[in-house]
Amino acid sequence: MGAVSPLSSTRITGGLLREWQDRNRHATIPHTVEQLRVAGNLDNLSRLLSAEPPAYRGRYPFLDTDLYKTLEGLAYEIGEGEGDAGVREFFDEVVGLLERVQGEDGYLNSFFQDPEAAKKHWQDLGWGHELYNLGHLIQAAVAAHRRMGDARLLAVARKFADLSVRRFGEGGKEGVCGHPEVEMALVELYRETGERAYLTQARLFVDRRGHGHLRHSVFPPDYFQDHLPFRDLPTVTGHAVRMGYLAAGATDVFLETQDRTLFETLDKLWDDMVATKLYLTGGLGSRHSDEAIGDRYELPSERAYTETCAAIAVMQWAWRMFVATGSAKYLDVFERVLFNAYAVGLSADGQAFFYDNPLQRRPDHEQRSGAETGGEALRRSWFGCPCCPPNIVRWMAQLGDYVAAERPDELVIALFTEGRIETDAVAVSVETAYPWDGDVRLTVERAPGRRYAIRLRIPAWARDVTLDGEPVTAEDGWLTVEREWSAGDTLRLHLPMPVRGHASHPYLDATRGAVAVARGPLVYCVEQQDSPAPVDDLVLPVDRLADAELAALPDGLPGQVAVRLTADVAPVPPAELYPEITGEPVAAEQAGTAQVTLVPYFLWGNRRPEAMRVWVRAQ
Amino acid sequence: MGAVSPLSSTRITGGLLREWQDRNRHATIPHTVEQLRVAGNLDNLSRLLSAEPPAYRGRYPFLDTDLYKTLEGLAYEIGEGEGDAGVREFFDEVVGLLERVQGEDGYLNSFFQDPEAAKKHWQDLGWGHELYNLGHLIQAAVAAHRRMGDARLLAVARKFADLSVRRFGEGGKEGVCGHPEVEMALVELYRETGERAYLTQARLFVDRRGHGHLRHSVFPPDYFQDHLPFRDLPTVTGHAVRMGYLAAGATDVFLETQDRTLFETLDKLWDDMVATKLYLTGGLGSRHSDEAIGDRYELPSERAYTETCAAIAVMQWAWRMFVATGSAKYLDVFERVLFNAYAVGLSADGQAFFYDNPLQRRPDHEQRSGAETGGEALRRSWFGCPCCPPNIVRWMAQLGDYVAAERPDELVIALFTEGRIETDAVAVSVETAYPWDGDVRLTVERAPGRRYAIRLRIPAWARDVTLDGEPVTAEDGWLTVEREWSAGDTLRLHLPMPVRGHASHPYLDATRGAVAVARGPLVYCVEQQDSPAPVDDLVLPVDRLADAELAALPDGLPGQVAVRLTADVAPVPPAELYPEITGEPVAAEQAGTAQVTLVPYFLWGNRRPEAMRVWVRAQ
Repeated sequence: MGAVSPLSSTRITGGLLREWQDRNRHATIPHTVEQLRVAGNLDNLSRLLSAEPPAYRGRYPFLDTDLYKTLEGLAYEIGEGEGDAGVREFFDEVVGLLERVQGEDGYLNSFFQDPEAAKKHWQDLGWGHELYNLGHLIQAAVAAHRRMGDARLLAVARKFADLSVRRFGEGGKEGVCGHPEVEMALVELYRETGERAYLTQARLFVDRRGHGHLRHSVFPPDYFQDHLPFRDLPTVTGHAVRMGYLAAGATDVFLETQDRTLFETLDKLWDDMVATKLYLTGGLGSRHSDEAIGDRYELPSERAYTETCAAIAVMQWAWRMFVATGSAKYLDVFERVLFNAYAVGLSADGQAFFYDNPLQRRPDHEQRSGAETGGEALRRSWFGCPCCPPNIVRWMAQLGDYVAAERPDELVIALFTEGRIETDAVAVSVETAYPWDGDVRLTVERAPGRRYAIRLRIPAWARDVTLDGEPVTAEDGWLTVEREWSAGDTLRLHLPMPVRGHASHPYLDATRGAVAVARGPLVYCVEQQDSPAPVDDLVLPVDRLADAELAALPDGLPGQVAVRLTADVAPVPPAELYPEITGEPVAAEQAGTAQVTLVPYFLWGNRRPEAMRVWVRAQ
Repeated sequence: MGAVSPLSSTRITGGLLREWQDRNRHATIPHTVEQLRVAGNLDNLSRLLSAEPPAYRGRYPFLDTDLYKTLEGLAYEIGEGEGDAGVREFFDEVVGLLERVQGEDGYLNSFFQDPEAAKKHWQDLGWGHELYNLGHLIQAAVAAHRRMGDARLLAVARKFADLSVRRFGEGGKEGVCGHPEVEMALVELYRETGERAYLTQARLFVDRRGHGHLRHSVFPPDYFQDHLPFRDLPTVTGHAVRMGYLAAGATDVFLETQDRTLFETLDKLWDDMVATKLYLTGGLGSRHSDEAIGDRYELPSERAYTETCAAIAVMQWAWRMFVATGSAKYLDVFERVLFNAYAVGLSADGQAFFYDNPLQRRPDHEQRSGAETGGEALRRSWFGCPCCPPNIVRWMAQLGDYVAAERPDELVIALFTEGRIETDAVAVSVETAYPWDGDVRLTVERAPGRRYAIRLRIPAWARDVTLDGEPVTAEDGWLTVEREWSAGDTLRLHLPMPVRGHASHPYLDATRGAVAVARGPLVYCVEQQDSPAPVDDLVLPVDRLADAELAALPDGLPGQVAVRLTADVAPVPPAELYPEITGEPVAAEQAGTAQVTLVPYFLWGNRRPEAMRVWVRAQ
């Protein structure tokens, strides 16, 4: 349908997303602030005020970004007049520290500003993360400027950005950062300030990749997306978060430059990713090694890495592709990621996090003791590399930005949530229990006073959709209602949400012969405590799915809808691992059936650690 | 049947194993010697003769072991009067260096003997590999003493071993090495010298594990098998090579102490490994991360790590379990590993190596550029961590040790190969083209002159076995022929080798709905160049297997038997990754059939890199 303009004024007023935002406000943010203090992220800055600074705490040169991501989230909270006591003080404390610590030339990075490390500035672009730090600083600064009207952080960010442009701009040093992120931020800084040099710099960083600038003793060039020029990439590759941030940044560059060669690459990479490399949950990244995306169709459930940060990166990319094209297909993925691969990263109480998000936990899973990112049984309160927790924080805080968009004479509803959407032309309130229920009621609170369209996204999974009780057909994922509206007019959209089963592509070995259960945008899973038979013994033929019923969630899980169904139980007698196939088909042993409750995948792991499966044997 | 005594006098005189030994002699050993020189392994020793030694070359503190493993192999070669020109000189050169470099107290490790590193002796048992180094030194020394009658290296090894016993013996420091290996070696040193302190020390090292002695900044305790006492391990776990070496060493301790609590653990661990954690190829280790074994039934084909060294470790353990029990089941695994997971580690020309050995290569496999151990497309000539190549060398050289064993009044044939087996009681020659063919002809060359049994191993895959043309039935994997033999007596064993299909256990998600082809002890695979249709589109229902025929191998591959069969071809039209399952079963698209040639898995990757599958869709 063509490009759309994002809307930043939407308020989420109820429902699951509001519960998530409240949890963020009252649990995750206070927890994160405390962890940042305890882990030393603030000390890393304040130590630089001392003539003989104590040692940097932590091993990674990017720990300032955990502060920046938190500040970005806080800017949304404070801007909406929300946030618990102490939040404003924390914001001011960190900004004050940053102002005092920033170098006279604008340089800012508490790892490298140590006098001992000072000569290392810009010496290790592959691993130093200095421009990655700048990127998160800019994003926090732009959020503070936009949402709070606070210009202090923006001044700090511009000073560092200007230094970077002088160093790496046209005619400057041909460097790029080992971890893409600054590209998105620089384009946003251009949008906020109008300073074209930032856009140019972002474009240069995208264009410079793939010329072997980056060297590392452990990681290969493709880890950094530096093995091929961006436009030559045949597929998303390397470190998943890096790839997602790079693609999102390149999309931002396209949005502001309309460079079609960039879009052609992005379009190809996106479709290929969705068709061959994305988990059912929307997670990206199949390998623990190098946190890498992996080959096409390499999507093992138990070793799915699908870092929480990669989920955010995919949503960032998806949203920008939607903004560029108005195409609903990007929102289908956005929603899949939001309610599954992203949401699962946070515990129900908002104070513990998954770094990696597998789709299966085996009965005798060996918890990797003492490790940080190795598939631990349950979520952890913090990490030595804590990139995910504050990333969750900022994203929760800004979810309102991804609910709606506008075009001339048209309001575009991208995501269903209880909320209030306001533009210059129109104000609409939405009532819905989505994603638990597919009924959505829109009320026009302020009418445009002219013919005007309201465009509703119809998710790809939806069938038999009705509007105001009448069957309707979506076109390319959209339903458009154009009329002269009056205040008080309503639209009642009904998206039926039967329980669905999904199979997988024949090339995808890891889930061959298995079925996954979904309803609406939610992927479901079975945890051992909700099945009387071992989850590995459950078999779900298609006809069993047809009899599925909705039910309340098991005790201890917040939310609304579980799926109850009867599974066949086919226990496996002591058997060879690789039995010889003989002429006669082996008679499947079947020991009756079992009533099983499936819970939304994003809620798994909130009780004691037991076996879990998204994909259940289908035969 | 009870314990057996190994035989070390068997000569392999022809057939595939002899071809492998010849290749080792004329290609792999010269190549390895050259690589060791180029990589600096010798320089690391000779530099210590200088007052101001140049820097250690390489990053790992265990590079001396590559020399030791090579010396162990050379001892077999030289002992048999084989080996190319220069081999003896290399042996003498290295031994001479070791004699000169060894510390006065017996300490020997070219990494830590650097004056700069001297104070670090024994300070980092978790990662220092000092006792691991000692283990390989001992194994080389025992081989040199036994096979060459050369006592020089044994003197060096004993001096270092004695130092270690003084330091870590009873009443000494309660240390244990981060990488098990020295346990096997110390027991062998006890066998060779009769010095009981070495056996005691080996027992102590096994018993001390699991008390949290080992600390590492990256790897968790289970990586080192130090999270639980050995007897409490519920399953093989952690780093695969470490686990295999530890289990083999513990079996050696059991063999000499008859400590049943050790055997009970070993028996349980073995059966669990074979039933839940071993690849069809006999490979062990499912994860690239930490080179770890992984969970039960976690056996993904494309990411199979199955390090070549782990294959050797499993064979070492299997052989010792066989020696302890006389049970044929251990030899079934030994043989599976030998002809598949081990053999695949070496190229057909003997000069390139796989470090990890996946069971699948995807069509668009992204070769991890510049990495050492990350699933590169094809074998490499050497590695920065070159543990596998010299491990292959020593194992090829000593294959004769694993052909036969004896018991009182009984010769036990463990592995079929053309060769000559000699004991005090009997001499037997064997003619066979095994594993290409299941006909085995034994000729008694020297008769015992009393009733005597020849016990033939009947592999678990064998059906309809005949002896001298008569149907026979194996008992627990053995066929025993007891009689008064005369010189010239023969036995003709016939093991039919039809093409077999194998399925996998229902808990094993990665290969569900797929079939693997095997014949005799060989697992087969399909490489793209041998299939007119994409390998991912091939489907092999059971009845297609029944029509399989034997054929010559494709051009460029050495050996004898390929499998030709007609596969169904079910190309996948552009399709969703996770299609919704609807009531009607999706009509399988089928575009006819294709004549496909399957080659032994161990030969894959000797032509240009293309897609490969061991497991092919079955429906």
